[in-house]
Amino acid sequence: MSLIGKEVLPFEAKAFKNGEFIDVTNEDLKGQWSVFCFYPADFSFVCPTELEDLQEQYAALKELGVEVYSVSTDTHFVHKGWHDSSEKISKITYAMIGDPSQTISRNFDVLDEETGLADRGTFIIDPDGVIQTVEINAGGIGRDASNLVNKVKAAQYVRQNPGEVCPAKWEEGGETLTPSLDLVGKI
Amino acid sequence: MSLIGKEVLPFEAKAFKNGEFIDVTNEDLKGQWSVFCFYPADFSFVCPTELEDLQEQYAALKELGVEVYSVSTDTHFVHKGWHDSSEKISKITYAMIGDPSQTISRNFDVLDEETGLADRGTFIIDPDGVIQTVEINAGGIGRDASNLVNKVKAAQYVRQNPGEVCPAKWEEGGETLTPSLDLVGKI
Amino acid sequence: MSLIGKEVLPFEAKAFKNGEFIDVTNEDLKGQWSVFCFYPADFSFVCPTELEDLQEQYAALKELGVEVYSVSTDTHFVHKGWHDSSEKISKITYAMIGDPSQTISRNFDVLDEETGLADRGTFIIDPDGVIQTVEINAGGIGRDASNLVNKVKAAQYVRQNPGEVCPAKWEEGGETLTPSLDLVGKI
Amino acid sequence: MSLIGKEVLPFEAKAFKNGEFIDVTNEDLKGQWSVFCFYPADFSFVCPTELEDLQEQYAALKELGVEVYSVSTDTHFVHKGWHDSSEKISKITYAMIGDPSQTISRNFDVLDEETGLADRGTFIIDPDGVIQTVEINAGGIGRDASNLVNKVKAAQYVRQNPGEVCPAKWEEGGETLTPSLDLVGKI
Amino acid sequence: MSLIGKEVLPFEAKAFKNGEFIDVTNEDLKGQWSVFCFYPADFSFVCPTELEDLQEQYAALKELGVEVYSVSTDTHFVHKGWHDSSEKISKITYAMIGDPSQTISRNFDVLDEETGLADRGTFIIDPDGVIQTVEINAGGIGRDASNLVNKVKAAQYVRQNPGEVCPAKWEEGGETLTPSLDLVGKI
Amino acid sequence: MSLIGKEVLPFEAKAFKNGEFIDVTNEDLKGQWSVFCFYPADFSFVCPTELEDLQEQYAALKELGVEVYSVSTDTHFVHKGWHDSSEKISKITYAMIGDPSQTISRNFDVLDEETGLADRGTFIIDPDGVIQTVEINAGGIGRDASNLVNKVKAAQYVRQNPGEVCPAKWEEGGETLTPSLDLVGKI
Amino acid sequence: MSLIGKEVLPFEAKAFKNGEFIDVTNEDLKGQWSVFCFYPADFSFVCPTELEDLQEQYAALKELGVEVYSVSTDTHFVHKGWHDSSEKISKITYAMIGDPSQTISRNFDVLDEETGLADRGTFIIDPDGVIQTVEINAGGIGRDASNLVNKVKAAQYVRQNPGEVCPAKWEEGGETLTPSLDLVGKI
Amino acid sequence: MSLIGKEVLPFEAKAFKNGEFIDVTNEDLKGQWSVFCFYPADFSFVCPTELEDLQEQYAALKELGVEVYSVSTDTHFVHKGWHDSSEKISKITYAMIGDPSQTISRNFDVLDEETGLADRGTFIIDPDGVIQTVEINAGGIGRDASNLVNKVKAAQYVRQNPGEVCPAKWEEGGETLTPSLDLVGKI
Amino acid sequence: MSLIGKEVLPFEAKAFKNGEFIDVTNEDLKGQWSVFCFYPADFSFVCPTELEDLQEQYAALKELGVEVYSVSTDTHFVHKGWHDSSEKISKITYAMIGDPSQTISRNFDVLDEETGLADRGTFIIDPDGVIQTVEINAGGIGRDASNLVNKVKAAQYVRQNPGEVCPAKWEEGGETLTPSLDLVGKI
Amino acid sequence: MSLIGKEVLPFEAKAFKNGEFIDVTNEDLKGQWSVFCFYPADFSFVCPTELEDLQEQYAALKELGVEVYSVSTDTHFVHKGWHDSSEKISKITYAMIGDPSQTISRNFDVLDEETGLADRGTFIIDPDGVIQTVEINAGGIGRDASNLVNKVKAAQYVRQNPGEVCPAKWEEGGETLTPSLDLVGKI
Repeated sequence: MSLIGKEVLPFEAKAFKNGEFIDVTNEDLKGQWSVFCFYPADFSFVCPTELEDLQEQYAALKELGVEVYSVSTDTHFVHKGWHDSSEKISKITYAMIGDPSQTISRNFDVLDEETGLADRGTFIIDPDGVIQTVEINAGGIGRDASNLVNKVKAAQYVRQNPGEVCPAKWEEGGETLTPSLDLVGKI
Repeated sequence: MSLIGKEVLPFEAKAFKNGEFIDVTNEDLKGQWSVFCFYPADFSFVCPTELEDLQEQYAALKELGVEVYSVSTDTHFVHKGWHDSSEKISKITYAMIGDPSQTISRNFDVLDEETGLADRGTFIIDPDGVIQTVEINAGGIGRDASNLVNKVKAAQYVRQNPGEVCPAKWEEGGETLTPSLDLVGKI
Repeated sequence: MSLIGKEVLPFEAKAFKNGEFIDVTNEDLKGQWSVFCFYPADFSFVCPTELEDLQEQYAALKELGVEVYSVSTDTHFVHKGWHDSSEKISKITYAMIGDPSQTISRNFDVLDEETGLADRGTFIIDPDGVIQTVEINAGGIGRDASNLVNKVKAAQYVRQNPGEVCPAKWEEGGETLTPSLDLVGKI
Repeated sequence: MSLIGKEVLPFEAKAFKNGEFIDVTNEDLKGQWSVFCFYPADFSFVCPTELEDLQEQYAALKELGVEVYSVSTDTHFVHKGWHDSSEKISKITYAMIGDPSQTISRNFDVLDEETGLADRGTFIIDPDGVIQTVEINAGGIGRDASNLVNKVKAAQYVRQNPGEVCPAKWEEGGETLTPSLDLVGKI
Repeated sequence: MSLIGKEVLPFEAKAFKNGEFIDVTNEDLKGQWSVFCFYPADFSFVCPTELEDLQEQYAALKELGVEVYSVSTDTHFVHKGWHDSSEKISKITYAMIGDPSQTISRNFDVLDEETGLADRGTFIIDPDGVIQTVEINAGGIGRDASNLVNKVKAAQYVRQNPGEVCPAKWEEGGETLTPSLDLVGKI
Repeated sequence: MSLIGKEVLPFEAKAFKNGEFIDVTNEDLKGQWSVFCFYPADFSFVCPTELEDLQEQYAALKELGVEVYSVSTDTHFVHKGWHDSSEKISKITYAMIGDPSQTISRNFDVLDEETGLADRGTFIIDPDGVIQTVEINAGGIGRDASNLVNKVKAAQYVRQNPGEVCPAKWEEGGETLTPSLDLVGKI
Repeated sequence: MSLIGKEVLPFEAKAFKNGEFIDVTNEDLKGQWSVFCFYPADFSFVCPTELEDLQEQYAALKELGVEVYSVSTDTHFVHKGWHDSSEKISKITYAMIGDPSQTISRNFDVLDEETGLADRGTFIIDPDGVIQTVEINAGGIGRDASNLVNKVKAAQYVRQNPGEVCPAKWEEGGETLTPSLDLVGKI
Repeated sequence: MSLIGKEVLPFEAKAFKNGEFIDVTNEDLKGQWSVFCFYPADFSFVCPTELEDLQEQYAALKELGVEVYSVSTDTHFVHKGWHDSSEKISKITYAMIGDPSQTISRNFDVLDEETGLADRGTFIIDPDGVIQTVEINAGGIGRDASNLVNKVKAAQYVRQNPGEVCPAKWEEGGETLTPSLDLVGKI
Repeated sequence: MSLIGKEVLPFEAKAFKNGEFIDVTNEDLKGQWSVFCFYPADFSFVCPTELEDLQEQYAALKELGVEVYSVSTDTHFVHKGWHDSSEKISKITYAMIGDPSQTISRNFDVLDEETGLADRGTFIIDPDGVIQTVEINAGGIGRDASNLVNKVKAAQYVRQNPGEVCPAKWEEGGETLTPSLDLVGKI
Repeated sequence: MSLIGKEVLPFEAKAFKNGEFIDVTNEDLKGQWSVFCFYPADFSFVCPTELEDLQEQYAALKELGVEVYSVSTDTHFVHKGWHDSSEKISKITYAMIGDPSQTISRNFDVLDEETGLADRGTFIIDPDGVIQTVEINAGGIGRDASNLVNKVKAAQYVRQNPGEVCPAKWEEGGETLTPSLDLVGKI
């Protein structure tokens, strides 16, 4: 069974954010929308461009009430070191979680036990701490963070309008389908 | 651990395609790129628009050498019934796999054991039968099939150019990054 | 040990009945006589004629205080789709239960685990929710619903006249045997 | 899962037939059609009428190449004693199997472990020793053996005409349905 | 360890006695002396002569306060049928217990699991429901019920005269031995 | 299941016989009829009279080709000591087996584990080493060895005349019943 | 770990003493010194001389407050029988315990399970029921009971003078060693 | 079961003997008589006097073909240290085995697991490596080594004269008992 | 996981210190700093020089509030014996713990189960009984106790100044590093 | 049992060395002396000074034929990033192994499972891949790498001079002790 509809398991972690070390736990996810973006390793190649790309969407996501977290099995010390070293990473203002105990990566089912690194998984989590979308790519296949905004809007619309159904390729303001029995087999 | 990098487990199934009932097994996936699109139920609401949307990308995907399969835990009889009844579904020309034994849905980790229905999962599978991308959305959040073409291109580029790294938001013809040691921590 | 004399195990299901989706649980069986008719799959061949045949007995069964339920591992959505499509099925006015989680089929011991489809089993259930008769045919061997009325009458007679014994080929109004010790070995 | 489609498990038994004690094993079922009729107890009330009713169908069943066996957990000695005592039973010419070890009743899933008696189950078995139909009634509800002939004919027709489908209420010479894809959802 | 000195395990059974069906349980054994006489099967050969022989001792045993029960794994229906048919058995006035569930035969350790029939065992049970003597013969070796009276008398004497010892071949009124230390090694 | 029809389990023992210590094993039982007479303890009260009583039958049993063995959990040394001390025991000429390891008593299911003593069990064993009769009495109830001769004769008759049946209270030369189907339910 | 320093496990037994049968339990050992002398079998060879030898020390042991018990797996009946028969044994006035259930011999770890006989073990037990010395000889090697008196005296001295140490070959009134730290390595 | 009659389990150890460190294994015990003398600890109080006492018997034991070994859980280094320090111990010329791994002490069942020290056990072992006598004393109760010579002689006599029996308090040249059946119960 | 940060497990032991035998338990370690120095065996070669070397640091360690304990699997008796014999060891004034039960050595994970001897491990334990440093050398590689003083000072500084970090090669009074976020990746 | 004397378990890892990524396995340790220096995390505080200190000893260790490896659970990418960023770390020329799978840290028993970081453990490994010394410090207590040279020399001396013993505080050229029996207890 996939993680869709499951509540995030308990965790406690250190993160680097805006020049400081902060604590993050699963309790922090309650009452806000969250995006968790896993990647294999600091100081590796695709990762900085993916994380930079996510940073560019950060303002738009914040406006939707979404907090963003990146996660790798590196420590928060390494996140700071990378932030200090890399031009792309230095732009990042969201929380970079260190997961050296591999707990969070294992909880989200993205830990490669053989290498100890996380797969490239992106998760949207609702204000109940429940996972709404999962996206995971093999190494080398970059993620397009710009889809995230649309996905979040669709997830928020569904949450606010229970009973209405959101068709494919939905964009904000587009027509949605309210399910009625007559529609079965007609569309 | 996620399904990324895992080979598709063995299955045998009946599918409805182009007015006929055909057999599909995991062996058919060898030597071609494949997209597997799971959805909960025939004759339900979002599904037809998602499957119609996928049909619109089918030609483009075929040109990339990609075969498309939709899967639900309905039977192939029901797929034919739905194809006959629904205007949107009647356009579909790719194979609609029936999975009433729930084997394939369980193999792809998208079966909701309580309801017996599949989550909305989309998978890109390479010519070795190995899963390259996973995307799963909660009920009501539609999928945008247009991303699939880009993702497939990225996956194909990575396969054909081992050692080069494909950054985020990659589009065909865009610049890619060839990893070298000097780049570590620089981008 | 057969299911005869066993109470129906708990279940919750959606059914299609008279153009609506309704809930059905094992609790609904208490206080009425019930017939459960399992069949493999909507949109397949023998099934519609069997279900049509059952519909023709529905009025007679209703008069005996019997509610009728058909069950397959298809969803209630599919039952509606089939009802809309098929001339024979469109006549059906009893509840068509969807059992995609396979719970009810497994409880009645008619689930073929390999195919995920139900065997062709018919069950008469008394107002205590206890199974009184079981009949199961291999694929292709049709059931004759007209026997059901007689069987129900015999079951009701036995329930209302405990201590009397109902001989073979019993029909309403026919002579029954009241067991007495003297009859042992005499008939 | 029901016993439909399962081969009869191995057994060895003594039976009373035509004034003699004979051996019967599961191997005897190969190459002929068979009916197994279980009942709780010799010298009890409904049973003689049921067995008498079955005897009346015996000639017709023989013509269809069907051998008939009654089975209870009484011994073959008791079958003889009953045959000598009861007018109805004295007419019986088919084999009356004694199953005091309860092996056969347990194999056909009709043994009530608490009482040591068999439920009233009737089984049609094909020439491969495979069970094709099951019918079980609670105590007191008599069986109508006249249905057996029709059921056997249907089972034989299906065996001889694989690929054709036999609708409900089928009688010999009636129209059958040959399944074709076009019929799905049409009937 | 043998059953000598063990209390009879709980059972509930139907018996045929004096033209009626009665209930017998282990509780009925409390407060009376009992003889249990197991045999393999009604309507078989040695059995009637053994049971007739036992009947001839019944009056003498009754005078000693002993109730007599015969037991086979046949039903009480069969016992009645046999009583009606057989000249020898028709004389029997003690209770003939039916043990089709094989519980009592298994409790007294005389059930042949392979055939489902009881060995030819005779047991004397005291008013506490405790087994005092066991005698079991292989098939074909008849029992001599006339010994039973003497054995019961000896058992009753021992119960009434604790501390006295009853030598071999004891008959009522004969000399008994009261044990004293001086006798050790002397007799 | 009782020991009737079971072969005696392997044992090796020392016995006292005719002023000598001899070896006895289960192999010695092959090719002769044997009586095994268990008792609790040498130098106790009933035992000498029982053993004396058995000695009186010894000649008659020998003529029937029967060897006699008494067994207690005392040693063969003690058997000699008792033989030397007791007037009754000094007459014994059959083998007195010592079973201090309790193996034989346990094999014949007559060991009282709490006291380490044997119940008063008598067994007739045929020339195949198979137990034909069992008789066990509670402490204080003496055995009547004179029955043994009749029982042995019955057992020998059954062995020599397979297919004939020996009724109750059988004595040598008496009429026996040859079973035929016609007799079922008649006697 | 040896039995030294372990409390005697619970037991209940019958013994022969001074022409009477008495009860002995582990509780009787509390508050007195005890000697337990195991031997294999009454009426065997070395045993009487060993037991006679022990009897000769009995008076001296009694004066030291020591009770003496011999134990074999023979019964108390046999002990009486032997006492009556044997000149040497007839002199014995200490308790001869019968251990036919083998409980005590097993508790003292001297039971030979294969033969059911006890090894030749001698044990000194203090007034707390705790074993102070163990001596066991293979069959045929006699014990010299005269050592027992010295051993008991040493054990009593140690108990009464805790902190003093009793050297080898200690005899009453001899010099003992009071341990002091200075003596370490000096003697 | 005691260790009497058991072969010594395999071991390998270092010992101090005559100013040298030597290897000792269980194989060295084959073909000679051996005495094993366990004691708790070097540099403790009773021990030196016991070991000195044993040394005084060493010549006599050697003449009987007996090799002597003392064993404690101290190392062979400590044995040398003690030998150098203690006047009594410096006289010792037999092998002092170091058993810091506690293997030998555990094999001889004299290890106190709580303290890691050996009980005061003395064992005589025959030329087959089989234990013939066991003697164990609680702490503080010294052993008298002078008994050892007599015990060894008895053990050797029994070994050389199988079938003869050696009475209690046996001394070389004394009368022995040859067992004959007539002696049973007479001595 | 190493023992660093683990509390010392419970133990009770005897030690030799300043000419006396004292008790030492894990509770004694609370409220003081402790050094535990394990070594294989008294009276062996490297050990005395190591222990002498440790004695030379004892005064300096005492000034730092550190108690010193040496431990081997020898007894406290042997420690006294060695102290009396060896010039080097006679200088020792710290507690020499005897661990013949091997409990402490096993708790500190330095027991070689095959030889029963301890590895050469040195441990610094803080006043909470928690292990702060571990050092273990293979046999023959001596330890330099002079490092201990510096290590203890560093451990004490870290305990007294939580939040400050002590660099490598730290010596008292040297500059320490107070961690601040800015230093990450700078030093 | 400690890791002393154990061979290093198999591993495969990536390391950063001299501006390149290289492979390191346990096989590389064969035929050379090795030092393994574990530390918790790159970009943390004590670590750089410890690693710098180790670098200062690298030349001396190389001369002794010793290869040096640092290990943390960071990736080799992070090691490069740190090497690029930190002045102290930039001087390092030995191999910095990345152990994100935590395999090596777990093999050397220094993994803190809760944090996923390694304890500060230093290990000297001989040319057979066998661990000779272990040293582990709690967090904050720096290691003094200068001891390593001396320890290595001692370990090499012991390896080259088996049978000689190296006292505490050994330095090259110093006097060593050749063990002889006479020295036991003398030094």
